[in-house]
Amino acid sequence: MKAARLYEYDKQMNVELKVETVPEPKITAARDVIVRVGAAGLCRTDLHIIEGVWKDVMDPGGTLLPYILGHENAGWVEEVGREVTSVKPGDAVICHPLRTCGVCYGCRRGEDMYCENSTFPGLNADGGFADYLLTTERALIKLSENVMPVDVAPLADAGITAYRVAKRAAQLLNPGSYCVVLGVGGLGHVALQTLHALCGTRTIAIDLSEPARKLARDLGAHYVLDGGPNVVKEVKEITKGGAHAVIDFVGERGAEQLCWQMLRQGGTHFIVGYGGQIEVPTVHMIISEIAIAGSLVGNYMELVELMELNAEGRVKLYGQQYSLDNINVSINDFKNRNIVGRGVIVP
Amino acid sequence: MKAARLYEYDKQMNVELKVETVPEPKITAARDVIVRVGAAGLCRTDLHIIEGVWKDVMDPGGTLLPYILGHENAGWVEEVGREVTSVKPGDAVICHPLRTCGVCYGCRRGEDMYCENSTFPGLNADGGFADYLLTTERALIKLSENVMPVDVAPLADAGITAYRVAKRAAQLLNPGSYCVVLGVGGLGHVALQTLHALCGTRTIAIDLSEPARKLARDLGAHYVLDGGPNVVKEVKEITKGGAHAVIDFVGERGAEQLCWQMLRQGGTHFIVGYGGQIEVPTVHMIISEIAIAGSLVGNYMELVELMELNAEGRVKLYGQQYSLDNINVSINDFKNRNIVGRGVIVP
Amino acid sequence: MKAARLYEYDKQMNVELKVETVPEPKITAARDVIVRVGAAGLCRTDLHIIEGVWKDVMDPGGTLLPYILGHENAGWVEEVGREVTSVKPGDAVICHPLRTCGVCYGCRRGEDMYCENSTFPGLNADGGFADYLLTTERALIKLSENVMPVDVAPLADAGITAYRVAKRAAQLLNPGSYCVVLGVGGLGHVALQTLHALCGTRTIAIDLSEPARKLARDLGAHYVLDGGPNVVKEVKEITKGGAHAVIDFVGERGAEQLCWQMLRQGGTHFIVGYGGQIEVPTVHMIISEIAIAGSLVGNYMELVELMELNAEGRVKLYGQQYSLDNINVSINDFKNRNIVGRGVIVP
Amino acid sequence: MKAARLYEYDKQMNVELKVETVPEPKITAARDVIVRVGAAGLCRTDLHIIEGVWKDVMDPGGTLLPYILGHENAGWVEEVGREVTSVKPGDAVICHPLRTCGVCYGCRRGEDMYCENSTFPGLNADGGFADYLLTTERALIKLSENVMPVDVAPLADAGITAYRVAKRAAQLLNPGSYCVVLGVGGLGHVALQTLHALCGTRTIAIDLSEPARKLARDLGAHYVLDGGPNVVKEVKEITKGGAHAVIDFVGERGAEQLCWQMLRQGGTHFIVGYGGQIEVPTVHMIISEIAIAGSLVGNYMELVELMELNAEGRVKLYGQQYSLDNINVSINDFKNRNIVGRGVIVP
Repeated sequence: MKAARLYEYDKQMNVELKVETVPEPKITAARDVIVRVGAAGLCRTDLHIIEGVWKDVMDPGGTLLPYILGHENAGWVEEVGREVTSVKPGDAVICHPLRTCGVCYGCRRGEDMYCENSTFPGLNADGGFADYLLTTERALIKLSENVMPVDVAPLADAGITAYRVAKRAAQLLNPGSYCVVLGVGGLGHVALQTLHALCGTRTIAIDLSEPARKLARDLGAHYVLDGGPNVVKEVKEITKGGAHAVIDFVGERGAEQLCWQMLRQGGTHFIVGYGGQIEVPTVHMIISEIAIAGSLVGNYMELVELMELNAEGRVKLYGQQYSLDNINVSINDFKNRNIVGRGVIVP
Repeated sequence: MKAARLYEYDKQMNVELKVETVPEPKITAARDVIVRVGAAGLCRTDLHIIEGVWKDVMDPGGTLLPYILGHENAGWVEEVGREVTSVKPGDAVICHPLRTCGVCYGCRRGEDMYCENSTFPGLNADGGFADYLLTTERALIKLSENVMPVDVAPLADAGITAYRVAKRAAQLLNPGSYCVVLGVGGLGHVALQTLHALCGTRTIAIDLSEPARKLARDLGAHYVLDGGPNVVKEVKEITKGGAHAVIDFVGERGAEQLCWQMLRQGGTHFIVGYGGQIEVPTVHMIISEIAIAGSLVGNYMELVELMELNAEGRVKLYGQQYSLDNINVSINDFKNRNIVGRGVIVP
Repeated sequence: MKAARLYEYDKQMNVELKVETVPEPKITAARDVIVRVGAAGLCRTDLHIIEGVWKDVMDPGGTLLPYILGHENAGWVEEVGREVTSVKPGDAVICHPLRTCGVCYGCRRGEDMYCENSTFPGLNADGGFADYLLTTERALIKLSENVMPVDVAPLADAGITAYRVAKRAAQLLNPGSYCVVLGVGGLGHVALQTLHALCGTRTIAIDLSEPARKLARDLGAHYVLDGGPNVVKEVKEITKGGAHAVIDFVGERGAEQLCWQMLRQGGTHFIVGYGGQIEVPTVHMIISEIAIAGSLVGNYMELVELMELNAEGRVKLYGQQYSLDNINVSINDFKNRNIVGRGVIVP
Repeated sequence: MKAARLYEYDKQMNVELKVETVPEPKITAARDVIVRVGAAGLCRTDLHIIEGVWKDVMDPGGTLLPYILGHENAGWVEEVGREVTSVKPGDAVICHPLRTCGVCYGCRRGEDMYCENSTFPGLNADGGFADYLLTTERALIKLSENVMPVDVAPLADAGITAYRVAKRAAQLLNPGSYCVVLGVGGLGHVALQTLHALCGTRTIAIDLSEPARKLARDLGAHYVLDGGPNVVKEVKEITKGGAHAVIDFVGERGAEQLCWQMLRQGGTHFIVGYGGQIEVPTVHMIISEIAIAGSLVGNYMELVELMELNAEGRVKLYGQQYSLDNINVSINDFKNRNIVGRGVIVP
C-alpha cells in the first residue's frame, strides 16, 4: 500500500515524509480491525513528532523509524479479527486515537487515555497517512449515514480534545456566566461550538488572527477580542469582575500567565495548549479560590457524543483537503499558517 | 389601592374574585419592600386555591379570607425598609414567589423553597393581583434594561419550576440522548427552551392539543407527538429503547403511569404536574435501574439564571394580557383553555 | 468435575440440586479464563431461580436445564486464553458476576450491568457451584495477599449490590444527616459498613429479627429499630423530620410503602429488595421533592473498591460454610432463615 | 469591657497587644447579635495581621487601629436585635467568622466567603479577644448540649478551612485511593480526622515535627512521613504511582512545588497554606491531567457539618488555653512553636 513515513527527526524540520509503497498491516489479535483510511487529519503534534519533541516519550529505544504518522483517522472497515462483533467490513467508522486494553482500571473507568497498556497509532506505531490502518474494535465508532470520513477525521483527536475540555467547563457554567476561549484554531473552533451546544454561558473568543476572529464571530461567539495588551482588563470589564472559566488552547508565549488572571473568584483555568509555564502565587490561588486544570484527549464516549453533535450539524469541522501524495505540501502550509481550519489528508 | 380578593372557596368555582379598594400594604421589617405591581401571572394554582384544594395547607385556621391572590409578580420597587441595600425605589424587579428568612438551613443551602419560615404571597398572604405587593429584599431580582415586568411576570413561578426541572434533567443528558417533555403548556414551553439552551439532548414534545404541538415545533422540538394510545411505543422507537429522561408536566389522568414506561435503563422520570398516583413494581425499578423524582419551584439563583436566558432571548414567555378589572374573564378563559401560553394580569 | 445442577423449576421448591460429575468447561475465546472455584455464595436469587421466577428472563427458550447455579464466585485462575494479560494461573481472584463484551456503550461507560451482550454465569449459563467456572479476563479482580476466596465470594454479587447503593446514598449524605437501612441481612450488613466507611451520616438500622439487630449494633449502627407498627413515626422523631435517605433491602410486604414516608423534604428512597409495588401520589412526590430510585448490582470498579475496603478490614462479610455435597442442606437452611449472614459453598 | 487591642503594625513583631478596658459593642441593625465570648482561637493570621501583611487588604485607609483581634469565636448570646428569631440570650453558639449580607449572589449560593458585602470581625472590625463581640444572626450556630465554647472556638476558622478542603478532596477519593496531608498543625489535624470520617481513602501525613507526626499516628493516619529529601519518591512508592489528592497546608518554602509532583495522573493538588509560588510547565499539567486548586475558609453549612462531627466525637480539636490577660504570652508561644495543637484565649 501507499504510505507516508518519517525517516528521521529534525529539529529544524528540514525533512520530508517519504511517500512510498509499504506492506499492508495484518490482523493478529482476535479483536484487531483493518481500516481502509478515508481521511487523516494533520495535527500540530505531527510537526512536533518530526521535530523530535516526542522522541523520548514515544520512541525511547530509537527503533521506531521509519514509521507512518497520522493519528486522526476515519475510513471504512476492511477486515476484522475473528472475535469482532460490533463492526463489519464496509462500515464507515472514525477511530478513537488509542488502541486500549479494556481491562486496566483506566479502561474500566471509561477513561481510555488512562489505559496502562495502550498503543497510539501515528505516535508510537504506524498511523493513518496510508491506505490502511491497523487498529482495534474498541477504537471504532460507526458513522451516521449522512457523514463521510473526510468530513470528520480530525474530530478523532483535535475534536475530542476540544470537546472534553469544553464539556468539563460547561458543567461549571450557568446562564449569565462567561467563558473565555483563547485561541480559535483547529481545537478552539470546536470548543466554541461545543460550549454553545452544551450550556447557556456567554463565550469570549480571543485570537491574534483576524480570520480566526471572523470564524469565531460566524460561530456565534458573544464577544471577540484580538488579544492585545489590555486583554485581561477587557475580559474583566465585559465579565464585570472576571470570567467563570478560561480555556487556553495556546499555553505558551505568555498566554498561560494571562489566563488565570482573567478569572473571577471561584473560576477555573483549563490548560490544553502547552509549551509555557504556569507561575502563580499560592496566596492568589487561595484568596481567589481558583483552580488550574490540565485537560487531555477525550475518551471514547466523548467521541461518541461529539459525533452525535456533528451528525446533527451542531459542531462542524472547518478544513482543507490534500492528497497523500501532497502531504509534504500540507505540512509546509501548516508550518506557514496557510491552512484555514484543519488540514485533512486523503489517500 | 385596587385589588382582586377571594371571599370564599368553591369546589365548583362558581365564585368570582372581587375587584375592590383595599388598604395599601405597609413596611414593618427592616428588609421589607413594597413593589408596585407591573404584571402578575395567572396560574393553575390560582384555580386550585379558589376550588379550596390548598385550603388545608395554606389556610388551616380558616382566617385567611378575604385575601389577594397572585404569586407570579413583577413590577417596580416603590418603597424599601431601612436596611435594604440591594434595590432602591424605581428599580424594575421580578419577585421570587417566597418570602424567606435567610437563616434556616434551607436558606443557607440556597434552596429557598426549603425555608422553614417562609411566607408565600398569593397563597398564604396577600399577593400581586393588586396595585402594590409587600415582599422582602431577598425575593427581588433586578430586571435587565430591555426587559419589562409584563413580559416576564409568569417566569417568577411557572418559569422557574420549568427551569429547575429542565436544568436537573440537562445535567443527566449528553449529546445523543433523548428527553421527553410531556405537556407543552405554560411550564412545558419554558422547559423545552431551557433544555435547548442548557444541553445537547434531543427533545420529544408530547401534547394532546395541536396549538401546543405547533408551539413545540416552533420552539425547535426534535420530535412532536400527539400522545395517542401508542405513545410509549412511539417513544421507544424514536429513542431506540427508551428516553434518558422524561419530564411530566401533567401528572394525572394516566400520564404519570406512561412516563416511567418510556424510560430506558438508567433513565429518570421527573414529576412536576400532579393529581395522579405513581404505581410501579419494585422489581421494575431495580432491573431498569430507573429513578422517579419530584421537582418543586426553583430557587432564587435559578430565577436569576432564567432571567439571564430571557434577557438574551433564549427563553421567551408566550402569553396573553388582561386588565385587573377583567381578572374574572381571564380566569374563565383559563378554565375553558382559551389562553394561548400564559395569562398575565396588568393592574 | 463435580457440580450441582438444577434439573427443573418448581414453584414449591420441592426439588433438589443434583450433585454430579459433569465435563469441565473449555476455553474458546482469546480472553476466556477458567477459574478453579474456591467458594461460591448462596443468594436469594438462587431460590428464585429454582422457583422459576427468572425463567422467562433467563431461560426464555426453555433450553437451559440442566445447568449449574452459583453467581457469587471466587477462586484461583486455572487456565487462560491466549490473549489474557492481566491474570495468570495461580492468581487468587474474585469474579464480577457478569461476562461483558467491553465494546458496547454500557461497558464503555464503566457500567458493566448495562452491557448489551453479557452472559450471567449461574443465571443464564453454568455458574460456580462446581469445581471450575468459565468466565473472562474482564470479570476478574486479583485478591490481596491476605484475602482468601472463601472469605469474600458473596461480595461478588450481594456485596457490590449493597456497596453500589450505599455509595450512591453516601454521595447525598453530609454529617448531621440520617440514613435508614431497612433489612440487615446479607446485603444490609454490607451497606451499613459501607456507609460508615464512606460518609459521616448517622445510620438507622431496621430489622424484624433480633439477631440481625444485634449484628447492626455490633457494626456500629447509630440507631436500631425493630420495624414495629410505629416505625415511620420513630424514624421521623429520631431524625427530627425525616431521613435524608432510605435504603430498602426488602422491597415487599409493605416495606416499600413505608420507606418513602420516612423521608424528609428532598430525600431519596433507594430500592434494592423487590416483590412489592410502589404507590405514591404525584402531589406528594412534588411537595416533598423526594426521589425514588432503583439500584442494581455494582460495576467492576465498585467491586474493586469494595475489595479494598474488605482488605483493610473496614467491610467484612459474615457467613457460614457448606461443602458442595451439602448444598441442598444450605438451601434448606436459607429457606428456613437458619443462616446467620451469608451461606458459602466450598467445592 | 476588657479587650486586647492592636495599636501598630510591626514587621518584626516587637509589639504587644494592649489589654485594656474599652466600651462594649452596641446593637444597631435588626439582626445584630452581641455574643459574650467564651473562647477565641489564636490563628497564624493574627501574627500576619500584627506583622502588617494584611494591612493593604483589611485596612487600606489606615484608620482601623487600634482594634480588637480574634476571628475564631464561640460563646453565649448576650443580646439580640429586634428581628432576630433563630437564637436567644443564653444560647451557646459558635460564630462563622464572616458577617454576611444574605442577599448577594455569593450568599444566595450558600458561599458565605463570596459575600460581596461582608465584614470580618478580627480582621477588619473588632474581633473576639474581648468580653463581648458584635456579630449577626446569620453567623451563629447553636452548640449541642454537651459542647462548650472553649472546646470548639478554633473550629470557627481553622476548623472549617480544613473541613472544606478535606470534604472537597473526599468527593474525589474512592476506597483504594491515597490522599497526602502535608502539615499536621491546627488545620492539618482537623483535615486528617475529616478525611477519615468522610471517605474511605488512605491518608499519608507528612510533617517535619515529631510531635505533629505522633498526633497524626494517634489520629489514625495510614502512613506518616517526615518530609525528608526523598518525600516525593516515598509517596510515589507507597501509592504505586502517585497520590490521588494532596492537601498542602504549608504552601511555602518549597512544599508547594513538591505537592503536585506527588500526584498520579488525574490527581488534584489543593492549596491552603500560602507564601510560596506554584511553577509548573503546562505540558506537565496536560499529560498528567492534574488540577491545582486553591481552597478558602468554609461556608456556614460546612461549619454546621463540622460541628455535627465534633459533637459526635469524630473530629476533635487539640489545643491549649490562655487567659485574655496572658494573650501576649500565647502569641509568643505560638511564634516559638511551643503550642501543641491550637491556642485558645479565654476572657
